[in-house]
Amino acid sequence: MASMSAVLSKSPFLSQPLSKPPSSSDLPSFSAASLSFPFKPHRRGGVPPIRAGLIAPDGGKLAELVVAEPRRREKKHEAAELPRVELTSIDVQWMHVLSEGWASPLGGFMRESEFLQTLHFNSLRLDDGSVVNMSVPIVLAIDDEQKARIGESKRVALVGSDGNPVAILSDIEIYKHPKEERIARTWGTTAPGLPYVEEAITNAGNWLIGGDLEVLEPVKYNDGLDRFRLSPAELRKELEKRGADAVFAFQLRNPVHNGHALLMTDTRRRLLEMGYKNPILLLHPLGGYTKADDVPLSWRMKQHEKVLEDGVLDPETTVVSIFPSPMHYAGPTEVQWHAKGRINAGANFYIVGRDPAGMGHPVEKRDLYDADHGKKVLSMAPGLERLNILPFRVAAYDKTQGKMAFFDPSRPQDFLFISGTKMRTLAKNKENPPDGFMCPGGWQVLVDYYDSLSPAGKLPEVVPA
Amino acid sequence: MASMSAVLSKSPFLSQPLSKPPSSSDLPSFSAASLSFPFKPHRRGGVPPIRAGLIAPDGGKLAELVVAEPRRREKKHEAAELPRVELTSIDVQWMHVLSEGWASPLGGFMRESEFLQTLHFNSLRLDDGSVVNMSVPIVLAIDDEQKARIGESKRVALVGSDGNPVAILSDIEIYKHPKEERIARTWGTTAPGLPYVEEAITNAGNWLIGGDLEVLEPVKYNDGLDRFRLSPAELRKELEKRGADAVFAFQLRNPVHNGHALLMTDTRRRLLEMGYKNPILLLHPLGGYTKADDVPLSWRMKQHEKVLEDGVLDPETTVVSIFPSPMHYAGPTEVQWHAKGRINAGANFYIVGRDPAGMGHPVEKRDLYDADHGKKVLSMAPGLERLNILPFRVAAYDKTQGKMAFFDPSRPQDFLFISGTKMRTLAKNKENPPDGFMCPGGWQVLVDYYDSLSPAGKLPEVVPA
Repeated sequence: MASMSAVLSKSPFLSQPLSKPPSSSDLPSFSAASLSFPFKPHRRGGVPPIRAGLIAPDGGKLAELVVAEPRRREKKHEAAELPRVELTSIDVQWMHVLSEGWASPLGGFMRESEFLQTLHFNSLRLDDGSVVNMSVPIVLAIDDEQKARIGESKRVALVGSDGNPVAILSDIEIYKHPKEERIARTWGTTAPGLPYVEEAITNAGNWLIGGDLEVLEPVKYNDGLDRFRLSPAELRKELEKRGADAVFAFQLRNPVHNGHALLMTDTRRRLLEMGYKNPILLLHPLGGYTKADDVPLSWRMKQHEKVLEDGVLDPETTVVSIFPSPMHYAGPTEVQWHAKGRINAGANFYIVGRDPAGMGHPVEKRDLYDADHGKKVLSMAPGLERLNILPFRVAAYDKTQGKMAFFDPSRPQDFLFISGTKMRTLAKNKENPPDGFMCPGGWQVLVDYYDSLSPAGKLPEVVPA
Repeated sequence: MASMSAVLSKSPFLSQPLSKPPSSSDLPSFSAASLSFPFKPHRRGGVPPIRAGLIAPDGGKLAELVVAEPRRREKKHEAAELPRVELTSIDVQWMHVLSEGWASPLGGFMRESEFLQTLHFNSLRLDDGSVVNMSVPIVLAIDDEQKARIGESKRVALVGSDGNPVAILSDIEIYKHPKEERIARTWGTTAPGLPYVEEAITNAGNWLIGGDLEVLEPVKYNDGLDRFRLSPAELRKELEKRGADAVFAFQLRNPVHNGHALLMTDTRRRLLEMGYKNPILLLHPLGGYTKADDVPLSWRMKQHEKVLEDGVLDPETTVVSIFPSPMHYAGPTEVQWHAKGRINAGANFYIVGRDPAGMGHPVEKRDLYDADHGKKVLSMAPGLERLNILPFRVAAYDKTQGKMAFFDPSRPQDFLFISGTKMRTLAKNKENPPDGFMCPGGWQVLVDYYDSLSPAGKLPEVVPA
């Protein structure tokens, strides 16, 4: 962990630990009734008790699947002898997710019983009868040729793009890949044009292979951002070092504007009001596959960095890290995965907005999901009972104050909603948003990004015919 | 209940109670290990303990929603003053299902939170934190005009085809009917041609209305079959009268052939071997909507009656009754509903076959569902832990014995599989199946049915051009 600490101390994203983390005996005990808490967490049973340690991972223990150093050489030799399954870049991202225990207690790519439980129940029943959430299939597709090559072998080597084995899958089970059913049950539609489906399912093999995963080395992307890819174990260590007594996670795949920042700082204020002494924000951008018109991870990370530098968010109480999962854009089904993954990283509060993980319907002129279904489904999801769901308060640009503020329905005319599309259009055209929409440094990153897309340094002009 | 008893004693389907029902003290105690039971019930935790009373309904108490006699007049007056929602015949079937508590603890057409839990989790979480299975949405669609007519009213009258109110729905909630998502998540496909979808969803309104249901009179169809429509409470009474210490339910929507009969008698034999003293078969044909090429309920009931008359099944240990639910043909999702409904009627064993509630894909040349998924999903379904799943053993016509027998994979050449399509074709053409496939009386009913479809008493001949 020495190298990790070195990385951490260089990062503006990860601040010094508090001088004295509060001990559990410092924590007040209180009941929901004694608090005035205007945004009641969506949780069966009301406000949670304050607790000393971090929330336990699903299944009680992180499923860490990277082979320990002393055995790597031996495992690599074993892998060299096994039938090979080539991984796509999205497969590698899922392998990364599995290897660090984001999907704990899942111990590898899903076998059929896990796949079916995920499709039908969005949850897995463990041997002890308890239930954990698992809403998105984490599966590995193979084609007929690969299946034939595997033959009767009970183990396979998973192979990266450079042709080298990166993992071993043992005690394998090969079963049919019911693509249409998987898509229908995961997305609630089979309309053509779902980004993840077109990227990772339509042309994938007709078989799925599940088994116990052993990853030969920690997954690295060597893109300059690996230092931000903290595993759940590393995040837990950092959060404990900071003495967090509440961890609130904010999933995002877009640039942070001041409305987001307002929401996050307001959440911290409210957690302090609830009696927590040291709530820590886990600002947790999604780092895996995203659709073509999303802002790429590297630019988003630059933008987030500026937001912290500009003091919009407090580095003392914020941890910025990358969630390595690919994006499904599967709305209420996927938001459960986003929440569950963060439990495994130690978060016990989860901020959920309007239409989480949603997008426009690929064929019809409407949103694919009801904007309220995500937070409703999240609040009812099996296996997420321990997580406190914090519904998003809508922020918009308040023209009277010249800044982002919580929307006041009594004076709607004063508010300006700046959509993602609008924001992108402004940045593309090098126009400025209203003052106070986003910190200037962060906005400049966006302008630079769109600039970089056009070779001449600006968007091509439409030439009149 | 006096009239009910009278009906029962006239019916060949419902036999006299045993002279002396075994008392609970007669029951042996034993463990799974002491038994040789070749088809181990698919149940977490192994063979169930023998218990005295019937299995409790989901939620602990049947949700019986028919207004008690003394208050019917008053409720009818109230209903006359309310905004009206017209019911389709399938709506009436669901109202029937709800009114008798088949969907206990559901107390009416689903509100959005129940609908969303059903779509995403195939289960409902109750206030006490326990979970019951609920895999199929039981919802009532209304159109824009009906919604406008309801306005701000918190109650509506549900109106039958004759224009008279049949029920009151109170504390209503109107929410969007996300048809595509409902179809995708329930059927795992959105392909055109799903029978229930075309019959009941495609042209239904764009809103759903949920609420607490009060049904003004017990639902009757006056088709000569009402005497077979025992409610869960009536079935429980009958099963208790017979002193059942195990109740094994067999859902069907097809004529009974000797393969089914073999399976049912063999199941009883095995339950006796397990130590049960008086296992009772609940032969429970589905009575609601079925697709056009299924054999209609009235003919199926005639056929089932013959099967009992011919002694293929023992009337002493068999209860034949009608399950009033419409059919979804939604495979693994629907089989859970079929099982859950039978728990509420007192069944603690459920026989599940190949591809339950399945059908051919409406567009592609394949079955819509993997034939094994139904029993797998059933064995993993939340809220069905108390039910013992008995996987179907495949029966086929054994040419060497001249009768239906369990398929022996060591001599496949000796077996003849007679599909539903083959059976229908034989009956249509007045050809006989092999001796021993079905009792002659039952077969004659099928022949008579197809005869009745053709005005000239036979199928129209194809006239050569």
